[in-house]
Amino acid sequence: MSVLLYDTTLRDGTQSEDISFTVEDKIHVAKLLDEFGIHYIEGGWPGSNPKDIEFFRSIKQHNLKNARISAFGATRRAKLTCDDDPSIQALLESEAPVACIFGKTWDFHVTTALQIELHQNLEIIEDTLAYLKKHVDQVFYDAEHFFDGYKANPDYALQTLQAAKRGGAEYIVLCDTNGGTLPFELGAIIEEVKKQIDTPLGIHCHNDSELAVANSLTAVKHGITQVQGVINGFGERCGNANLISIIPNLKLKMGIDCISDEQLRKLYHVSHSIRELANMAEWKNQPYTGKSAFAHKGGIHVSAILKNPDTYEHIAPEIIGNQRRVLVSDLSGRSNIQYKIEEMGLDIDINDPSVQELVNTIKELENQGYAYEGAEASMELLLQKSRGLVPDYFKLRGYRVIDERREQDKEPISEATVRVEAPNGDTYHTAGLGNGPVDALNTALRKALEQFYPVLNEITLIDYKVRILNTTVGTKAKTRVLIESTDGKTRWTTVGVHNDIIRASYLALVDSIRYKLYKENI
Amino acid sequence: MSVLLYDTTLRDGTQSEDISFTVEDKIHVAKLLDEFGIHYIEGGWPGSNPKDIEFFRSIKQHNLKNARISAFGATRRAKLTCDDDPSIQALLESEAPVACIFGKTWDFHVTTALQIELHQNLEIIEDTLAYLKKHVDQVFYDAEHFFDGYKANPDYALQTLQAAKRGGAEYIVLCDTNGGTLPFELGAIIEEVKKQIDTPLGIHCHNDSELAVANSLTAVKHGITQVQGVINGFGERCGNANLISIIPNLKLKMGIDCISDEQLRKLYHVSHSIRELANMAEWKNQPYTGKSAFAHKGGIHVSAILKNPDTYEHIAPEIIGNQRRVLVSDLSGRSNIQYKIEEMGLDIDINDPSVQELVNTIKELENQGYAYEGAEASMELLLQKSRGLVPDYFKLRGYRVIDERREQDKEPISEATVRVEAPNGDTYHTAGLGNGPVDALNTALRKALEQFYPVLNEITLIDYKVRILNTTVGTKAKTRVLIESTDGKTRWTTVGVHNDIIRASYLALVDSIRYKLYKENI
Repeated sequence: MSVLLYDTTLRDGTQSEDISFTVEDKIHVAKLLDEFGIHYIEGGWPGSNPKDIEFFRSIKQHNLKNARISAFGATRRAKLTCDDDPSIQALLESEAPVACIFGKTWDFHVTTALQIELHQNLEIIEDTLAYLKKHVDQVFYDAEHFFDGYKANPDYALQTLQAAKRGGAEYIVLCDTNGGTLPFELGAIIEEVKKQIDTPLGIHCHNDSELAVANSLTAVKHGITQVQGVINGFGERCGNANLISIIPNLKLKMGIDCISDEQLRKLYHVSHSIRELANMAEWKNQPYTGKSAFAHKGGIHVSAILKNPDTYEHIAPEIIGNQRRVLVSDLSGRSNIQYKIEEMGLDIDINDPSVQELVNTIKELENQGYAYEGAEASMELLLQKSRGLVPDYFKLRGYRVIDERREQDKEPISEATVRVEAPNGDTYHTAGLGNGPVDALNTALRKALEQFYPVLNEITLIDYKVRILNTTVGTKAKTRVLIESTDGKTRWTTVGVHNDIIRASYLALVDSIRYKLYKENI
Repeated sequence: MSVLLYDTTLRDGTQSEDISFTVEDKIHVAKLLDEFGIHYIEGGWPGSNPKDIEFFRSIKQHNLKNARISAFGATRRAKLTCDDDPSIQALLESEAPVACIFGKTWDFHVTTALQIELHQNLEIIEDTLAYLKKHVDQVFYDAEHFFDGYKANPDYALQTLQAAKRGGAEYIVLCDTNGGTLPFELGAIIEEVKKQIDTPLGIHCHNDSELAVANSLTAVKHGITQVQGVINGFGERCGNANLISIIPNLKLKMGIDCISDEQLRKLYHVSHSIRELANMAEWKNQPYTGKSAFAHKGGIHVSAILKNPDTYEHIAPEIIGNQRRVLVSDLSGRSNIQYKIEEMGLDIDINDPSVQELVNTIKELENQGYAYEGAEASMELLLQKSRGLVPDYFKLRGYRVIDERREQDKEPISEATVRVEAPNGDTYHTAGLGNGPVDALNTALRKALEQFYPVLNEITLIDYKVRILNTTVGTKAKTRVLIESTDGKTRWTTVGVHNDIIRASYLALVDSIRYKLYKENI
């Protein structure tokens, strides 16, 4: 048996209170999902906002390997025909090969929210689908509030599905929109639906009762073959069904084909990359991909794990790209480093004394708030520096940033100066303006360094992320800055931590520059 | 039907990587749980650490209303008698009226982890329970790895339960220790157990597959009458079964008696208080008790919620002490603004032209990157300013921030100056140092303003969040800053957006100050 995965991170996921993707973020997420083996990617709701229209235009220029792009929308408005309804037209203009539209199942919603007659709703469902069917490659129907609607009025709920079937829906997706349904109820209702509807069925769950994963699996157990969900369970209120948990549960525990073994090994990477793009705080205890998911603390557990990991692990962490952590100081440190060394393909013996020294250095830095996940370039610099393989390319003598707004209604000005000492002893004192203090600092720094390292003009900074660490002390909080750079060939990310955000940014900038020089073997 | 609630926040919950309670914290948690109506509180493992011994000594001086205190432990060591085993003796010395001990179910664990014969393990289980039964009021048995053990060797797994029964266990608790069991398997196995064991059964689940809540409910559906779990699902790896979700699911959805309606209204309070005591970061999307659990963002949802909250809520938030929130964002329209107006208790007609103007203003600001979700104070200021109800408390003439590091190995220094014009025309020019540029700016600004608005000295900044908006332009990216403030009575959050992070922070700081003055009717 196999199941199709339909991801709605870019649509329902963005309903989450704190998530707001740029178009570039959305493209990045779509490419990650495609590599991961997701079958359908719902890119947005073209009828509802201009950012989504831009995404659909842009994604066409990318060749996806596995996934088809889907556009979301609603059934036509009661007073308009499909030809006149701007939201329906926006779906067509998106040129997405798949359209997924939702309609009302629950009689109470038809009369209370839409305020139309029950039979009108059936006509709307049928003719919207029939219309789209003529223009779009595949059409899916999301039966909103299906389970609540079925409990309130089973006959009417099933009539809405019949209307969708007549309209030509290729999949009918049963939605637990309010997230209040229990697995036992859900399974029983699906069995009733199957007696009357032979269209393939999908499931779309929300996590308001902390049951979205269980409900999705239960639906599959009852024969449903399309699962809709969101990476990391992002979404409005308590979030959508979490694909990061559903996928390994399906594949490893229910033996259901959905993605390949190789794709499954990307689970950790996909989960963490999309969390970073969404700028959402870490969920350490996240099932499967959390940093603590395979971390062992209790003494009894640790000693058993050393004898055989199956004693306290439900799966082997490597299968999904995560790793075991044993929270016993120098054991965990060294194995982490070993893992990193192997990952970077470096030839260092784990028993080399420099490794133990490095473990201590990293521990100290981690105490200060450094984290090297996602900042592999800083990690590699640290590692190679401890082995004497990174020269002192320059000495930083000092810097100053002035950020000021002299008069009301004037834009602020940022000016930076830096003093840098070159290897030959010459000192360069340069100044630069910028779009904010960090940009000014970057300008001044590059002006100084490019005089003796012209190769640095290849670097462009492409991402800048700020995270506040200990948040209970207001503007005195410690800041972690991640900077992503490219030279057109590769990309690398560096990190800086300090309670002064300028200083933290400066540290990450300087690491980015050193990394480029190191990679060029200068 | 009724179910007994057995909380292990103070024992299994503290296995969480980041949780470390003091004895005072533990007493505080126990009292909260008691008021909440929990039946059994597992206070710790007296045989394993001195802090737990201190807790058991101390809790005896408190009169609990509902709960019995339980002490956790293991079956005796193979080479010792119960009289000689210090861990068993520590259980007795704790003087807890209930003892809950765990033993091995899985043959592989007996031979691999304990390294003893299978029959020896059965004798150990039976005689440990029999010994404790003579000294303690109630004795429970936790069958560790029960489901994995049953799948590996059902006969032996059931023999261990028979041994526990012979030993006199009042409850036999089936544990999904590794958290890898699916609800379907779990239900079927419990049915098999019930055929052979007539001792009352309990369930103890872990969340490694994001199924701990579903598994606990499934167990109850199959006749189990004691549920073990942890508040907020804290615990080792991915945590234990979350009582904060289990309790309302049992009571509101399965109609199972466990706590009173009045106690259920404390769910939000208990969840948040214990999170604070554990010093764990907020889980905004937490089912039932998260700040976002009843927050509505999409325009369609909001317009339906205004007609009837049942349209997009699975339960009424007041039942569990939470509340509804409506967010204003680029996905929203007039309905969200209307809801906000009502929430703030303002008397504004939605059809007032000022409202349409405000909607347009907000859309324009949102295009610039503003987001008012979580920044309700800035939203209220905007709304009231559009109606001429916020005076010009002061004019900001200009500011300057200098952030510099003069010499290598010196810490950076941040200095700010501001020029502010008071309503009477006087200009104040002040300076301040800080722990980073934003802190310096805050110091200088407050120094100026407190001269004519002394009430501002009540404000403390408690949180500072930075988000970079369009991330592909590196250090030129636009920055959104959220600042949370308090005056000891209430908390409010304000927002600022600019491509200069200093300027963005400054805008949020100034809004926070204006909001305080506005609220004081100055």
